[in-house]
Parts: sequence; structure tokens; C-alpha cells
Amino acid sequence: MDSFGFRILARDGRARSAILHTPHGDVATPVFMPVGTQATVKALTPAQLHEAGAVLVLANTYHLYLRPGDDIISELGGLHAFMGWENAILTDSGGFQVFSMRSIREVDGDGVTFKSHLDGSTHRLTPEKAVTIQENLGADIIMALDECAAPNDHAYSRMAMERTHLWAARSAQAHRRSDQALFGIVQGGIFRDLRVESARYISGLGLPGNAVGGLSVGESKTEMHAVLDWMDRGLPEDRPRYLMGVGTPADIVEAVARGMDMFDCVLPTRLARHHAAMLRRGRLNLLGAGYARDPGPLDPSCTCYTCRHFSRAYLRHLLQAREILGATLLSIHNITVLETLTAEIRTAIQSGRFSALREEFQKALPVPDPSA
Amino acid sequence: MDSFGFRILARDGRARSAILHTPHGDVATPVFMPVGTQATVKALTPAQLHEAGAVLVLANTYHLYLRPGDDIISELGGLHAFMGWENAILTDSGGFQVFSMRSIREVDGDGVTFKSHLDGSTHRLTPEKAVTIQENLGADIIMALDECAAPNDHAYSRMAMERTHLWAARSAQAHRRSDQALFGIVQGGIFRDLRVESARYISGLGLPGNAVGGLSVGESKTEMHAVLDWMDRGLPEDRPRYLMGVGTPADIVEAVARGMDMFDCVLPTRLARHHAAMLRRGRLNLLGAGYARDPGPLDPSCTCYTCRHFSRAYLRHLLQAREILGATLLSIHNITVLETLTAEIRTAIQSGRFSALREEFQKALPVPDPSA
Repeated sequence: MDSFGFRILARDGRARSAILHTPHGDVATPVFMPVGTQATVKALTPAQLHEAGAVLVLANTYHLYLRPGDDIISELGGLHAFMGWENAILTDSGGFQVFSMRSIREVDGDGVTFKSHLDGSTHRLTPEKAVTIQENLGADIIMALDECAAPNDHAYSRMAMERTHLWAARSAQAHRRSDQALFGIVQGGIFRDLRVESARYISGLGLPGNAVGGLSVGESKTEMHAVLDWMDRGLPEDRPRYLMGVGTPADIVEAVARGMDMFDCVLPTRLARHHAAMLRRGRLNLLGAGYARDPGPLDPSCTCYTCRHFSRAYLRHLLQAREILGATLLSIHNITVLETLTAEIRTAIQSGRFSALREEFQKALPVPDPSA
Repeated sequence: MDSFGFRILARDGRARSAILHTPHGDVATPVFMPVGTQATVKALTPAQLHEAGAVLVLANTYHLYLRPGDDIISELGGLHAFMGWENAILTDSGGFQVFSMRSIREVDGDGVTFKSHLDGSTHRLTPEKAVTIQENLGADIIMALDECAAPNDHAYSRMAMERTHLWAARSAQAHRRSDQALFGIVQGGIFRDLRVESARYISGLGLPGNAVGGLSVGESKTEMHAVLDWMDRGLPEDRPRYLMGVGTPADIVEAVARGMDMFDCVLPTRLARHHAAMLRRGRLNLLGAGYARDPGPLDPSCTCYTCRHFSRAYLRHLLQAREILGATLLSIHNITVLETLTAEIRTAIQSGRFSALREEFQKALPVPDPSA
């Protein structure tokens, strides 16, 4: 596991800046991972993604297992070669999709039976199967199968957590590839007793990284922050900590302040396909008539390809005309916003200014939106 | 008009290789212009378009007049600034869209009244109005308003041709910007008498370039080639000749052999959005099951971004999964095919090998399509 060393460079409060070594390059943390559900970050080439600052992307085991099939991807040299991405990749276990897409037919202690959203065919996912698929896909970081339960039902959360623990242990047992790091996932909803127990169990497996699942699924910010505070105390300091499915600039800053290192979210690309540009603070809905003659870039301080070359007026035109390029240019910008934010966070931690950045962030007013 | 000099570098038979000077750079001819209907070549950034070899793109007056409006584009610095394209641009007159979209309410000697396809509102296009709109858009090359009639009705073709002549003269009268070149358009269907008369009239206006309209609209190849032969004799040698709406690799080669210099077509980007890759000879429909495990590039001899980085299997996956990136990567490839072809044609003309290239082209068998 030496190729996955995690070296902390600096701390500022509970925030950490580190380097995560992977077989496909070093990843400076805190890091934001764009989501490439079907082996493509929607509307972007790998070259554009790289220029936007991404060095680690997430791909979805559920989707790639169903189409084109992990056997095909393996035969073609694995996910890096398949999607033309030379930097690091993380695959999820498929569990989140199976549980969130309501396609489940049966869950039992051994695994989950589900129906394909593509053709209705029946499939079975077990911890071992999830590992095998991810070994075929060949990402640098793979995830243990888990069950993400509704966050506020204690009895169900306990059951899902215990299943998650069993499955994590079986995943660790099944995993063979030494060029992949397997991360376990802490569950337990919003309940302190469960989260503390789960962090203890998952940490005890001694995996090279630990993730926090089951957040950003409807709980309040206060509840999310409480869970993260428990995680900071419960998870080992010397391993990367991945907060799954988060998120917004504000959520990332607050999670970094609680010792989290890795983040992923569909938000930047999903917003881009729904006409919205992310800003450090707030969003612009570019369909607003106020942008029709606006010669300025999305964000004058942004250095992305989109902001260097195009006006808000042009972007609004592309969106109104339903041109594909609109989604591409907004995706470039939105991902750049999160990659730039995490780069600034790293610099701030290294120079002892993270709490100042965080305060400034909390205080700042949203940018007024002329379309509102 | 000095900024629009046209300097012939070499001839091979009737084929010519030349340099067309524009205020936004030199254009080596024969040249293929990708079509950017709504101020974007669909699914491509200007950077990708540039990398694909394009130095001159076409944009549509009809579409941009209706949305976002030529006043807005003018206010934002013109089309080059608006769409972030630093090289040359040609705008059509809007006539082809008005006549082909069946949105006409009334055509008379003075102009045409039409209904917007966007909101049903009524608009009027006259030769003077088409020039004014194109002056607002600010392309390097603009086109006189013309009427493209059904190619095989002599009486109607004569009427449409006479209208086109009147409108060309009025366009020349109305045109003011010295940093734009106005091209006239020859019409006359498939009829020798009309085409010869039209070429004589349009040439007589002494415009810096001449276009051949009304082809590639349903006539046979033999008919198209006959018209081009008449054009080669009827149009001045020392001005660029633009064959509108063409086309395929084979059509371009045959038109170059008849003295044509400039070409545009939606084919490469339209095929890309319909799952087809262009080859020098033939096409690949990538949805064919035979490509599911195909590790090779679209074309091993192609040097485009797509062929350098992605397999047919990956492209097929993107298309099956309806991912935007599929259209982007196929568009890059398809445009590169035509830009590479015209570059090879130029080299062949300059080295006296064009007729060999043409013969090789005519003889070659289509590449077998495993999906068929």
C-alpha cells in the first residue's frame, strides 16, 4: 500500500493539507473530485477537465457495470485508458445508486438484488461482487459496498450500519489488487452513538482511507456538522477522510474545518446543465434577462477558459438557444470554482490562514443576482 | 478591398490553391468552413475548432438576427468577440433559411416577409436589411440576399435568378463597411442558359468573391458537376469561388477539380449528433454492436484529439449512454477529416499531384463497416 501514502504537510486548527500518493499521480488535499458517472464528466473532454484543475475524478460502478460492462472496460485496459484520463480515479461501490434509485428488489445480509434502470433486468450486488467489478474497472481508489439509510430513523440506521460493517469487512477480505486502495465507509445517520461506533469499527479495519457516507441527504447543516465533529475525533488522523456527496463551497469549507480531506458532488455539472453558474458565494441563473447585454465574464476574478473568453451575454445566448456549448462552458467554470476553492484552502492551511479564509467566507454576503 | 486580396499560389488542371487575405487572418484555399449556425459550431469550443484545423467559420444571419439580435452582437463588439473566435468568419444572408424553412409569408421584388420559427412574429428581409444585419454582425465575408429555388423548374428558376440579380446589385449598393467583403451568389437551377447568364451578371458586379448557390439541394451529381463546369468558365479566375452547402469529401474533391475554392456544410456536426463518424471514404455508424470492444481509433491515420485519445468502444459507449461528450468528440473528428482533406488537396495542387489524389479518391473502395 506504499503507493497510497498520505503525508500531511500542514495543519491549521483541525484542517489539514496533505498529499495523497496514487499510482496515477499525487493528489493534493483537500481535493474536490468532479463526478464522471458514465466514464465521462458530463460535457467535458479530459483535456478540459485537466485544465479546470481536476486531478482525481469519480466514476460510478453501478452505471459502468450495467453499461458498457466492467468486462469490456477491463478488456480495453481499464477505466483510465477507456476514458482517456491519465490522472487518478475513484470508483464508488454502486451501493448509493442501488439504494437511491429505488430499484431494489431485495436486501439481505449477503447483498442486494436490484433491477437495472436500463432494461429492467435483475442483478445481484454483494460486497465481493462490488470489489470484483471495481478491480475490473481499475480505479486507484475503490469503495466498500455500504447501505446509505434515511438519516433520521435510529432502528433502521443501526441495521444499515451493521450491514455496512459486515460488508466492509468482507470487501477488505475480497480485495486483491495492490495498486488500488480500498476505503471503508462510516454510516449511522445523524445519531452520535451509531456514528461513534461506526467510525470505531471502520477504522479498526485498518484500510488506507475512510469515508463518511449518508450525509448531504436531507439532514440540517447543524446535524451534518455534528456528525463531522464526531468523525474528526473518531477517524484516524493519518489516513485520508472522504466526505461523500458534498458539495457546495460553503459545505466544503466547513467540512475542511472539521478535518475532512476529499469531496465529490454532481452539483457543478448538474447546475451547468440547468443554466446556473456557481460563484464562490451564490449562483447566477444565466437565463435572467439582465444578462442579455452583459459584456462581463461570469466572475471577473476567475481564470477559467470560460471566464477568459466569453461574456455572460454570450453564455446566456447559448443557453437560450439550447446549444451544447453552454453546458460545456458552464461546467468548465463551475468545476474550476471548486478546484480553485480547494487550492486556496490548501494554501491557506499551509500558511496558517485557514480560519481567516473560513471567517471571511462565512461573513461574505451573496453576490447580488441581477436576474432575481 | 486590399485586405481581401486573393493570391493564387498554384494550379493543377482547373484546381487552384490560393491565399485569401481577411482582416482576421489569411485563409489557405481550398478551404472547408464548419457551420456555426447560432454563433457556435455545435458542441465545440473555439479552441477545439481551432485545433481541428478550422480558420474560417460560417454563422447564420437568420438565426442571429432573431436571437440574440444583431444589435446585441454589435453592442458586444461583433461576432468575433461575441463567440470568442479570433479567425475569419463568413455570414450567409439569411435567405437560405427563410426560403428553406417554409416560413415565408410573402416574396416580392423588394424582399421577403417571413415568420420567426421561434415565436411566430413577422419579419421583413430585404437586400439592404440583410446587409445592415451582416454589418452589425461584423463578419469578414458577407453574402448578398438571394433566392434559392427548386433546381428543376426553369420558369421559377428564371424568376428567382432575376430577383437574385436585382438583390445582389442592391446589396452592393447598400454595403458600406470596407473591412468586409461582399460576395454575390449565382443561381439558375440546373439550367445552362440561366447559370451562364447568372454567372455573367454576378461577375459583372465586380465583387471580391462569387458564390454558387442552389446546389446540393436534390440534383444529381452529374447535374451538379455540369453546373460547376459552366461556373469554371463563367466566373472570374482571380476571385474566390464559394460552393455553398457542400459537402462530402467526394463532392469537395470533384468541386475543387472544377475550380471551386470554398465550401461549407453542416454534415460533419450533424452526423456527429447522429452517431456517425466521417471517414475520407464512407462513414461509421458507431452504434453498431461490432464496435463494442473495438480498441482502435475511428481512423488510425487521423491525428485529431479524438483519434489520439479514444477507442471506438469508448465512443460507442458515450453515444449509447447519450453523453454530450460523444457529440463533441465525433464533431472534432468529422471536422478534422474535412480540414485534413482540404489541406491535402492544397498540398497536392501545389506539387502537381491533385489529379492523382482525385483518381485515387474516385477509385478507392469504401471502408467496410462492421456494423452493417
